[in-house]
Amino acid sequence: MTERRVVFTPSGKRGDFADGVSLLDAARRLGVDLDSVCGGRGICGRCQVDVAEGAFAKHALDSRADHASPWGAVEQRYVDKRGALPPGRRLGCQAQVSGDLVVDVPPESQVHRQVVRKRAEEHPIEVDPVVRLHAVAVREPDMREPTSDFRRLQEALAEQWSVAEAEADIAVLRTLQKALRAGDWTVTVALRNGREIVAIVPGVALEAYGVAVDIGSTTIAAYLCDLASGAVVASVGAMNPQIRFGEDLMSRVSYVMMNPGGDAELTRAVREAIDALIGEAAAAAGVARGAIVEVTLAGNPIMHHLALGLDPTELGGAPFALAIDGACEVKARDLGLDVAPGAYVYALPCIAGHVGADSAGVVLAEAPYLADEMRLIVDVGTNAEIVFGNRERLLAASSPTGPAFEGAQISCGQRAAPGAIERVRIDRATLEPRFKVIGCDLWSDEPGFSEAAAGLGVTGVCGSGIIEAVAELFLAGVVSADGVIDGTLAARSARIETVGRTFAYVLNEGPPRLLIYQTDVRAIQLAKAALYAGAKLLIEHRGAAPDRITLAGAFGAHIDPVYAMALGMIPDCALDKVASAGNAAGTGARIALLNRASRAEIERVVRGIEKIETAIEPNFQTLFVEAMAIPNKADAFPNLARRIDLPAPTATPDGGRRRRRGG
Amino acid sequence: MTERRVVFTPSGKRGDFADGVSLLDAARRLGVDLDSVCGGRGICGRCQVDVAEGAFAKHALDSRADHASPWGAVEQRYVDKRGALPPGRRLGCQAQVSGDLVVDVPPESQVHRQVVRKRAEEHPIEVDPVVRLHAVAVREPDMREPTSDFRRLQEALAEQWSVAEAEADIAVLRTLQKALRAGDWTVTVALRNGREIVAIVPGVALEAYGVAVDIGSTTIAAYLCDLASGAVVASVGAMNPQIRFGEDLMSRVSYVMMNPGGDAELTRAVREAIDALIGEAAAAAGVARGAIVEVTLAGNPIMHHLALGLDPTELGGAPFALAIDGACEVKARDLGLDVAPGAYVYALPCIAGHVGADSAGVVLAEAPYLADEMRLIVDVGTNAEIVFGNRERLLAASSPTGPAFEGAQISCGQRAAPGAIERVRIDRATLEPRFKVIGCDLWSDEPGFSEAAAGLGVTGVCGSGIIEAVAELFLAGVVSADGVIDGTLAARSARIETVGRTFAYVLNEGPPRLLIYQTDVRAIQLAKAALYAGAKLLIEHRGAAPDRITLAGAFGAHIDPVYAMALGMIPDCALDKVASAGNAAGTGARIALLNRASRAEIERVVRGIEKIETAIEPNFQTLFVEAMAIPNKADAFPNLARRIDLPAPTATPDGGRRRRRGG
Repeated sequence: MTERRVVFTPSGKRGDFADGVSLLDAARRLGVDLDSVCGGRGICGRCQVDVAEGAFAKHALDSRADHASPWGAVEQRYVDKRGALPPGRRLGCQAQVSGDLVVDVPPESQVHRQVVRKRAEEHPIEVDPVVRLHAVAVREPDMREPTSDFRRLQEALAEQWSVAEAEADIAVLRTLQKALRAGDWTVTVALRNGREIVAIVPGVALEAYGVAVDIGSTTIAAYLCDLASGAVVASVGAMNPQIRFGEDLMSRVSYVMMNPGGDAELTRAVREAIDALIGEAAAAAGVARGAIVEVTLAGNPIMHHLALGLDPTELGGAPFALAIDGACEVKARDLGLDVAPGAYVYALPCIAGHVGADSAGVVLAEAPYLADEMRLIVDVGTNAEIVFGNRERLLAASSPTGPAFEGAQISCGQRAAPGAIERVRIDRATLEPRFKVIGCDLWSDEPGFSEAAAGLGVTGVCGSGIIEAVAELFLAGVVSADGVIDGTLAARSARIETVGRTFAYVLNEGPPRLLIYQTDVRAIQLAKAALYAGAKLLIEHRGAAPDRITLAGAFGAHIDPVYAMALGMIPDCALDKVASAGNAAGTGARIALLNRASRAEIERVVRGIEKIETAIEPNFQTLFVEAMAIPNKADAFPNLARRIDLPAPTATPDGGRRRRRGG
Repeated sequence: MTERRVVFTPSGKRGDFADGVSLLDAARRLGVDLDSVCGGRGICGRCQVDVAEGAFAKHALDSRADHASPWGAVEQRYVDKRGALPPGRRLGCQAQVSGDLVVDVPPESQVHRQVVRKRAEEHPIEVDPVVRLHAVAVREPDMREPTSDFRRLQEALAEQWSVAEAEADIAVLRTLQKALRAGDWTVTVALRNGREIVAIVPGVALEAYGVAVDIGSTTIAAYLCDLASGAVVASVGAMNPQIRFGEDLMSRVSYVMMNPGGDAELTRAVREAIDALIGEAAAAAGVARGAIVEVTLAGNPIMHHLALGLDPTELGGAPFALAIDGACEVKARDLGLDVAPGAYVYALPCIAGHVGADSAGVVLAEAPYLADEMRLIVDVGTNAEIVFGNRERLLAASSPTGPAFEGAQISCGQRAAPGAIERVRIDRATLEPRFKVIGCDLWSDEPGFSEAAAGLGVTGVCGSGIIEAVAELFLAGVVSADGVIDGTLAARSARIETVGRTFAYVLNEGPPRLLIYQTDVRAIQLAKAALYAGAKLLIEHRGAAPDRITLAGAFGAHIDPVYAMALGMIPDCALDKVASAGNAAGTGARIALLNRASRAEIERVVRGIEKIETAIEPNFQTLFVEAMAIPNKADAFPNLARRIDLPAPTATPDGGRRRRRGG
């Protein structure tokens, strides 16, 4: 029998096949990465290939012959139904070998597609989710051989997809009989890890989705992803409804401690919020909830525990013992999530009592464990969760910044939302401020701002705004290095007001009237000192300086690195190497959703991270006190000094305390 | 170092040990079957042994020395708390080798105890449940090494019990933190299959229980068993509440077909009933629900499907496709059962669309797959589920007897309950009846019966009563071989009454007045013909006659084999080889509960059973018609003829039809 040479590109894999072998079969035999859901029925269109005639040494090229079988009825049906294919494009399951061929597998026909990410240092995500779709034709029941519907499905999966002994839990089995009959004995199963069926739908189904969820103390974000392309098809967020039990984490843990059954209330609240977000995302993308076959979860330890229904009380005090630290798989229905009947929730592992599954997500997204350069990654929330190191050694710690950076416990503070002041500049001479408000592109001193702001309504100052305000007040000489608002300046500017025995700065005359009080400056000092000291502790342990600083989280997305450094929040680093990573915890959850291998990877990495508990580190208190000064006493900030007029570090407390700088 | 010889009986295992080795450790090293839950803390008392000095060739006996360490404080504490030990008895974990020893492990200290059963042909049950208890001391949390409570529990299980990588689901993990702290860092875990923790309780817990459930269409039975001893500590039963949706199986399936969501109603009803029974059994035995760590389930296919939440509609018509046939493990909480948080329900496998997990239970209890003799096992319910064969080959079928044997569709019928007539004798000459009523030991013609019956209240005739009545009417010549009540006898006895164009027999003058109508005789004829034909079909397929007949189920427990044979319900067999097995399905569920290996065994056996579908067997109809006659036309019943005055089989229908017999 004549054998034809078939070469697949871009893999370069090649083999000889008899006439009549489908290109999909040929690809499978050679281990070429060519997708298929319908199993060769010409329905799913996932196995599209570009076919060209081949001319190889082994076989003479006969240019007159057709080297692949002619365009067939099944392909025509596909095109009639789903639209035309590009020129030269064929369905791999229909086109058969009839001569030497070069077959190109375009990226969208590869099982393991890549999702490219934005920043240069980010690795692309290889799309290889834990759940894949397989369409199967199942034998009809026969009284002479009374096997069950499920056993015949198992047999079909074994024969048609080489899946041995597929399992399914009772919630999935409940849907089997109707699906088989509705699909006229063809169903598509969503198979998890090649072993467990998590959904069964009638006929040939082509779409499976997953949701990556990041549970913040303040907001919950959910990303609905197409598991075939890796694309985010809907991105939604909502306030964490647990806020009604306490603004910050510790007040929620207190609520649980004081109210028997309170943990169940908080658990219910967060689960309902997640389920509502999933519903919202599904509706936005026009996706059925039942097509969502996997969910991943990131969150700080307390959010992680509450979402899983674990009492967070132990996390409220030393020794901050986690109930579980490893990654955790739970049926989505056990968390009250309405998705595919057998779908799982995969919760990322926790690193320590204060360094949670959100940090694990950040580590997975930023991959410092693959980096040569020393990376400092800070996820700022109620606590700052800090990771430092590189491929050789990674350390993690949590530092008790409190909620000031999120705008809480600041008199005019609010969370980052339209109407919040997010950028502040203070004239060094006149001490007059100008600012920008979220939702408006104009500075407050630009023409048209008043009209725009009036429509928007200025409501308060968010975390990045308060940081810039305090840093600018320092740079303008209103606030001293040790954080005191200088009342003598009241003589020079009406912006300085007396408030009892202290002073305040009028950021906005209003309405609303927004003042930066002495207590606000103190709150920011405490927060930034905690963050800096935590980072410094890891740097000292590691014995190396950061080459790159990444600010993760909503807070990190808004903050200007220059001001973070001017305030002394973060250690010195080349300014072009300081950047925001956005919601990196959410990105980590998305990677865990899209790439099965990443789960084992982050589980392994997390186990190897050295945990530093700031509460019992003798050096932490010293670093913290030193870092209270602005910018602080332990860092010369050479990179920063090149950029803005920063005071030189002072050797003695007194020297710092009395220093004052004009514009 | 001096080594001492230690011999364990009854195993005969022996070895040499240094002074100071505990007898429990010595037993473990030798692989001697010696129980322990507390892991050598002297708390559980499961490792009790009888110690005697040894005199062996290798070592000279020094009769003055103590060959085991002296009675210790821990043993004294045990005795003070739990009561004295028998003379010579020690705690194996406390007594140490200090000389040559003979150590006897009494049966109650063996892990694999045996539960002996009543009938000679029944195999004892080796107690080796899937769930075992292990007490462990867990390391306290330490901020310097922030591992979770669960990881430290895993480490403790690995160190103290060689259990690697124990798993636990989220419902169990939820209880971990509190249990560890309440137990001062000692907890007892219920470990399933050496892998999954299904319950965690504070301190050293010694008792674990399981429940075996048999879901009949009419009644549900539950057996609460001590998983250490294998003993049934409570046995409870209740009506199946699904009866309100239909008396028999088919009317319940019809309900589901006619009422959308009806399957959920039936599922809820049966699950609530099972949960209530579990509660009742636990209360009766003084056992906490949380100490119930495993549940097993037997039931016919429709009950099996409904309990698992699977729609039984497909089982209501050809081809009678099961949703699942293999054994099935489901979290008990998913069935709404309130037991240990991680406990599983193990449902026995189904054999075919009409031969369910109840038959699998019967097969496991009766073990025909181990027998040399040919065994016919019949479980009579709404259908008769029939198994026939021996170790070489087993066949199974279901025969549509209808509910007549359960007293349904019989004018005076009722289920077997106090007040129901269960035994009937009819005088061959006078045609006067006498009978016995459930709940009273006297026959109706004995002195004192009237008084006893008045208190009890005669309410109807149960399955065995109706069978005996019809058989006796036949033997007395009132009913002909083809089942016609002979109206001419009205002239001889007032017991024969005219009812329209047919006749009836007055079994009780009343109150209540109980009559056997012509339609009742017909219903019994149809039922017994179906049963006989089903059995005969298997016998023909197998090509061998039964050596032993076992009648399983509540019905089988009441029926007198002589009458079953006199009526022609069952094939001929030596009468002393026909016996009732009681609730064999429930016994099978109990075996699956107590012995882990039995699960793989019955799963394997069930797969190998040949299923005969009576509905498509061309011969079934012929056998059925032949079996309508009393006793029937296909069997000479030589065994029966020796016992009672049975008419010889007739060669022609007419010969039978006109036969009449007096007393």
